[in-house]
Amino acid sequence: MSRPYSKRLNDIQPFRVVEILARAKQLEAQGRDIVHLAAGEPDFATAAPIIKAAQQSLGNGDTHYSQASGIPQLREALSRYYRDDYGLDIDPRRIMITPGASGALLLIAALLMNPGDGMLMTDPGYPCNRHFLRLVEGEGQLVPVGVEDRFQLHAEKAEKYWQNNTIGAMVASPANPTGEILSKDELSELWSLCQHKNGHLVVDEIYHGLNYGTEAPSILSITDEAFVINSFSKYFGMTGWRLGWLVAPEQAIPELEKLAQNIFISMNTFSQFGALAAFSEESRAILDSRRDEFAARRDFLCEELQNMGFEIPHRPAGALYLYAGIKKFSHDSQRFCLDLLENHGVAITPGMDFGTYLAEEHVRFAYTTSMSRLEEAVSRLHKIFV
Amino acid sequence: MSRPYSKRLNDIQPFRVVEILARAKQLEAQGRDIVHLAAGEPDFATAAPIIKAAQQSLGNGDTHYSQASGIPQLREALSRYYRDDYGLDIDPRRIMITPGASGALLLIAALLMNPGDGMLMTDPGYPCNRHFLRLVEGEGQLVPVGVEDRFQLHAEKAEKYWQNNTIGAMVASPANPTGEILSKDELSELWSLCQHKNGHLVVDEIYHGLNYGTEAPSILSITDEAFVINSFSKYFGMTGWRLGWLVAPEQAIPELEKLAQNIFISMNTFSQFGALAAFSEESRAILDSRRDEFAARRDFLCEELQNMGFEIPHRPAGALYLYAGIKKFSHDSQRFCLDLLENHGVAITPGMDFGTYLAEEHVRFAYTTSMSRLEEAVSRLHKIFV
Repeated sequence: MSRPYSKRLNDIQPFRVVEILARAKQLEAQGRDIVHLAAGEPDFATAAPIIKAAQQSLGNGDTHYSQASGIPQLREALSRYYRDDYGLDIDPRRIMITPGASGALLLIAALLMNPGDGMLMTDPGYPCNRHFLRLVEGEGQLVPVGVEDRFQLHAEKAEKYWQNNTIGAMVASPANPTGEILSKDELSELWSLCQHKNGHLVVDEIYHGLNYGTEAPSILSITDEAFVINSFSKYFGMTGWRLGWLVAPEQAIPELEKLAQNIFISMNTFSQFGALAAFSEESRAILDSRRDEFAARRDFLCEELQNMGFEIPHRPAGALYLYAGIKKFSHDSQRFCLDLLENHGVAITPGMDFGTYLAEEHVRFAYTTSMSRLEEAVSRLHKIFV
Repeated sequence: MSRPYSKRLNDIQPFRVVEILARAKQLEAQGRDIVHLAAGEPDFATAAPIIKAAQQSLGNGDTHYSQASGIPQLREALSRYYRDDYGLDIDPRRIMITPGASGALLLIAALLMNPGDGMLMTDPGYPCNRHFLRLVEGEGQLVPVGVEDRFQLHAEKAEKYWQNNTIGAMVASPANPTGEILSKDELSELWSLCQHKNGHLVVDEIYHGLNYGTEAPSILSITDEAFVINSFSKYFGMTGWRLGWLVAPEQAIPELEKLAQNIFISMNTFSQFGALAAFSEESRAILDSRRDEFAARRDFLCEELQNMGFEIPHRPAGALYLYAGIKKFSHDSQRFCLDLLENHGVAITPGMDFGTYLAEEHVRFAYTTSMSRLEEAVSRLHKIFV
């Protein structure tokens, strides 16, 4: 077979961190102790009431296909969540359950992008975003953002980078890998620009709930015309369940339902019944105490890294990450990460996994391990950097 | 917001049966009894040992992300399945777990199709196939097949319909909506043609295991260079779990893994641990006895429909369906289905959901309900058609 595979494969990169993780596994097999600060998911297992609810649903025989847009009960639960936690009135019909936020990104790409269309997004940012656009023959138009932007896309810069084929902007707040948020004013300005340009605005809010002491406003408090991507993975601690959701403008829903019918048929049914339990008082208390634990870890790790000379100009507001400048130590972040692993048993993620802009001078620390393991990591780092 | 959504939406159709199902629900709410012969999924809940294994996995806290290609244990279990059930030696590394067969179709479309490329497929056929290709700016090139082809794509006709932009063919055996299979010779001839044309061959084998008395050979017994789509949904009775798999040529695996990392991140983790139990002797005995039940339903319904004047030229070999000609009664299958529902309380699927070729003269009966309900449906049909 000599027919080549599709050209889009040239533009879709594997994760660099895979090399780090594979080497970590080898080292562990040799008996080495590795502190894992690379994983982009909470270390906690899903909260017990949610697990119990899914077990019960399995016992009830909820094993058939369910609605392509998600079970109505879960869409209604999310509508109540927006009312109770955000004071927003979001019609359940505007909320579609998706197979992870990944599924929501796929639907959005399919809905909005014609071949050759572009969408603005930050560099650094979540790398899969641009790959979803590439999948449908669109392109992510990367806007380099740095410390001076608090690593976020602001209206002024978005306007500067807006091209003839740009059809909108995609931002994340809090963001991966930087943990930075957009204020309500900043979101409003971005939305005004998108309206002015007749463009779409997509806001990734999957780290909502994992903001520590600083409010993370939803774009839904500003407009009903933006697209919101969210997920049960992070605050709700349900990564391995593959459940996300999408809030869309009302007129997009019939088209999105048609796409979901064809592309997904259904999400996992008993997982959705399990997710209903995520909104109980008991679950919320567990999730909020985990959020407080993440806050404490952020505070500890951020200060320690700053003291060692990692550049973190201010403590980021949320998510699970610290995006740290390593200029003082290296200009090759992949090499830096491999050395750190090899010689000191600490696994982190190289900047290249999030884009190209100053990527060689940055690494991502994920505080997705216990405080005692973070202390162990810091003590190992101290040997090199102090 | 006046910017239109993407053009591909014009080429992606919703399922016609949704109208039937919505009306069925209304009638049921009014107290009417409806016999459901529309659902493309086994009526049985998932077998108890599989449910128990998933509950256990949840209890073990298997709630984190797992490998993008699936947990190694499940890939190995499938490799053993190919050895034990097919006598084939398939390296587990060539087997990727996917979020349903839908996920496998998405990966294949992303891997193989450049914009403007086409792939041959039968009309009638599973409608989402062409929509997956359209999603990535390719096109399904529909080949009309009828009774004279046993509703399958054969090499001769494929050659006739092969165009300059055709990069391969996609067939299903047993097929939806017709239940027809391709023999080993027919598969070999198709594969020879694809080789001759330097094209890919994709075989949907998701109804394997649901063939009744007639062997359904796998393309894997002929070549390691074809792509196979399969699923835990049908024979294994796990539709709502969203687990499928893909067997690919060895050289495609790194590209497919890269795509899966980006598009899916992971499948549902505890569902995969549950699926491991599908291969136990206890589970297989349950699944095989269900298969025998489907065979008995096929025999009963096929004969009854034939006697009433529905055109089913011979008893199809597998799947869950009878694709029946209604020329004697109607030339508007959607109307026919709505009337049947409205006046006689039997829900079936119009031919239009599977393509356009003679679609107005065909309907699909799914024998996905108990024998006693099938008898009820037949007795209602008798009042009209005998």
